[in-house]
Amino acid sequence: MTQFPSSLLTGYRNFMSGRYVDERGRYRALAEQGQSPQTMIVACCDSRSAPETIFDCGPGELFVVRNVANMVPPYEPDGQYHSTSAALEFAVQSLKVKNIIVMGHGRCGGIRAALDPNAEPLSPGDFIGKWMNLVKPAAEQLQNASVMTDAERQTAMERISIRNSIENLRTFPYVRALEEAGEIAIHGAWFDISNGELWVMDSETRDFKRLDP
Amino acid sequence: MTQFPSSLLTGYRNFMSGRYVDERGRYRALAEQGQSPQTMIVACCDSRSAPETIFDCGPGELFVVRNVANMVPPYEPDGQYHSTSAALEFAVQSLKVKNIIVMGHGRCGGIRAALDPNAEPLSPGDFIGKWMNLVKPAAEQLQNASVMTDAERQTAMERISIRNSIENLRTFPYVRALEEAGEIAIHGAWFDISNGELWVMDSETRDFKRLDP
Amino acid sequence: MTQFPSSLLTGYRNFMSGRYVDERGRYRALAEQGQSPQTMIVACCDSRSAPETIFDCGPGELFVVRNVANMVPPYEPDGQYHSTSAALEFAVQSLKVKNIIVMGHGRCGGIRAALDPNAEPLSPGDFIGKWMNLVKPAAEQLQNASVMTDAERQTAMERISIRNSIENLRTFPYVRALEEAGEIAIHGAWFDISNGELWVMDSETRDFKRLDP
Amino acid sequence: MTQFPSSLLTGYRNFMSGRYVDERGRYRALAEQGQSPQTMIVACCDSRSAPETIFDCGPGELFVVRNVANMVPPYEPDGQYHSTSAALEFAVQSLKVKNIIVMGHGRCGGIRAALDPNAEPLSPGDFIGKWMNLVKPAAEQLQNASVMTDAERQTAMERISIRNSIENLRTFPYVRALEEAGEIAIHGAWFDISNGELWVMDSETRDFKRLDP
Repeated sequence: MTQFPSSLLTGYRNFMSGRYVDERGRYRALAEQGQSPQTMIVACCDSRSAPETIFDCGPGELFVVRNVANMVPPYEPDGQYHSTSAALEFAVQSLKVKNIIVMGHGRCGGIRAALDPNAEPLSPGDFIGKWMNLVKPAAEQLQNASVMTDAERQTAMERISIRNSIENLRTFPYVRALEEAGEIAIHGAWFDISNGELWVMDSETRDFKRLDP
Repeated sequence: MTQFPSSLLTGYRNFMSGRYVDERGRYRALAEQGQSPQTMIVACCDSRSAPETIFDCGPGELFVVRNVANMVPPYEPDGQYHSTSAALEFAVQSLKVKNIIVMGHGRCGGIRAALDPNAEPLSPGDFIGKWMNLVKPAAEQLQNASVMTDAERQTAMERISIRNSIENLRTFPYVRALEEAGEIAIHGAWFDISNGELWVMDSETRDFKRLDP
Repeated sequence: MTQFPSSLLTGYRNFMSGRYVDERGRYRALAEQGQSPQTMIVACCDSRSAPETIFDCGPGELFVVRNVANMVPPYEPDGQYHSTSAALEFAVQSLKVKNIIVMGHGRCGGIRAALDPNAEPLSPGDFIGKWMNLVKPAAEQLQNASVMTDAERQTAMERISIRNSIENLRTFPYVRALEEAGEIAIHGAWFDISNGELWVMDSETRDFKRLDP
Repeated sequence: MTQFPSSLLTGYRNFMSGRYVDERGRYRALAEQGQSPQTMIVACCDSRSAPETIFDCGPGELFVVRNVANMVPPYEPDGQYHSTSAALEFAVQSLKVKNIIVMGHGRCGGIRAALDPNAEPLSPGDFIGKWMNLVKPAAEQLQNASVMTDAERQTAMERISIRNSIENLRTFPYVRALEEAGEIAIHGAWFDISNGELWVMDSETRDFKRLDP
């Protein structure tokens, strides 16, 4: 029989004898009353970009979607299954979150693939290729900016993609309506995994500004 | 201008003055060398079911997908974008993870919706409805098991869904091949948010057994 | 008769009764022995970007060229007068500086003009237009990156221009020879006038990295 | 990889922990609102002749051009790039400065070279030679004044060159027009680096007079 990864079993035991002891009552109450997180965050699957870690959150605080390159697709009610759209619908219509954050990060592998004109499909299905098409027009523009370094294009594209996902959020009718009514606020953020810096998007200029530490 | 949620700003500052101070070198090394997590985990968006918390993981350890009801759809290379399939392709083919865990949890709202024959769409697009169709046949079967209580059907369905997602993982040709070659191990887990219990699926019987604390 | 600006007269008197008192001996020695600054810096005329202030330098330390957008033109020994080239020749061949720094800054008016496709000449001579042609090809590339915000293009162009000037430095045969012989080191820097951050160019990747405060 | 000069890094840190702390708000305001210096000054690259030091100026006060021997060339709208002319055009037409100061100094190396009939080119391009041709007729006259000492010719030439540059300023049509309209005032100054004395040019007689300390 396959063994559950032992490092995770050790980690689980640390959790149960450490943090869980302090939070036990909170977990019980949340189980009985249900969750009511105020914020939904769309973050990347990347192992270095965990929202609960970065924002020091405990159970009940964040409704977390994680996909490659933290993207939100545009609204397409076509009868197909769309996992990020389903999560958004649930968070907004059922949990009634007050905030939606799209959080990107530095060194994102999905964004790197999108900027690589010679990227080969990882498998015949080319799921990453199709998924990253969500930002293809912008990526092609940036590929032409040869006077920028690779790292400059990478960082620029990570932020462009966040703005793109925020625009896609607004293609969902209920998101747009709730935002206009002041019931939901939309935010962009970018986490520099190399040094812990958090940059927040200015909602007017759409530029990213580093938070004072 | 909309304000970034202040509780999250406070949490970020706690992170930077606390945990990050200890892990600073690790983040920097991970930024320079790239990530090489050994495990991919598919967990639920639920705010009470955070893998890094439950397994006490730091940066670089877990590649995390989070969607409603922690589901993996079957392999469908149809040219559409599929976010969970893209994440799986990236984790397996590029990061070459050694383990894939599908982790469900108690009180899952998505599973509750799947079991409710009278569930109304949350919006005209009915994304949750379509998404939860991934477990529809099994859900209908359980709906007919009227001699079970709601809570018994709920827990049963959460585990059935994990098994279903694990079967779907094996419809991806490269996952199946790597598992048969002993390069990848697939695991199921279920977290009881009310008391912190972790149940792990026995790969032979497919039953869930509680870990000793 | 025109009055010398009174604020500057006051400033001069502050200098003479303050700082000059401490540095009097140094000025006298420098007058007698001549200057031997180790570093030449090319900075912008901008009133917010003064090298002696930013690097807390006293007399004798920095040989300072200041022109619009801190640019170095390519080597053109065509018999015309070229003020920045003359300063470079003097610094390298006569003063034998060990370091040349090209320092740009945020919110640079010259760079903003270069990025503006609709910029009108400030006078019939259009000296700024001609001067900024030193970075025209790169500016046109960036103008096409419409997915970037104005501020993102501005910062990118400021750094691209620094790299461009550094390449132009290397078109001067004696600069190239001395650099290869290890006698001169060339550096790029960018000063964020909004918050005092100093970013230094990595000589290998050519990316700009913020100095830890 | 080449190291940024450590003395400058130390100086930058002194700046950030000292002066910048007091001026932080000023830099931020200047970044947001833009610069509006009232005075443009043309000074020498010489490390002993820094305008911000001599006039105790902070950010936002002086628009500073620095070239060898603080010269202003005559107006030549010939389509070539002219860095000092570009800076002048920007300062007058865009920033609308009220004052232009040409500030020379004692022991100026460029002036010394101009007075030396046997001066060898510093490199085949002879940029200094060509640049100093801006004052060649006057320099040749002074070379013939053999009854003056070297130091007397040096000081005289430094001041002659300032007057020459002021005449060249007036060859720019917009400078002349604005001066006649009383919108711009032109000043000459000469800084004695050996003892801190500042001499200001009388606009009528064109003689330099020492300021009372």
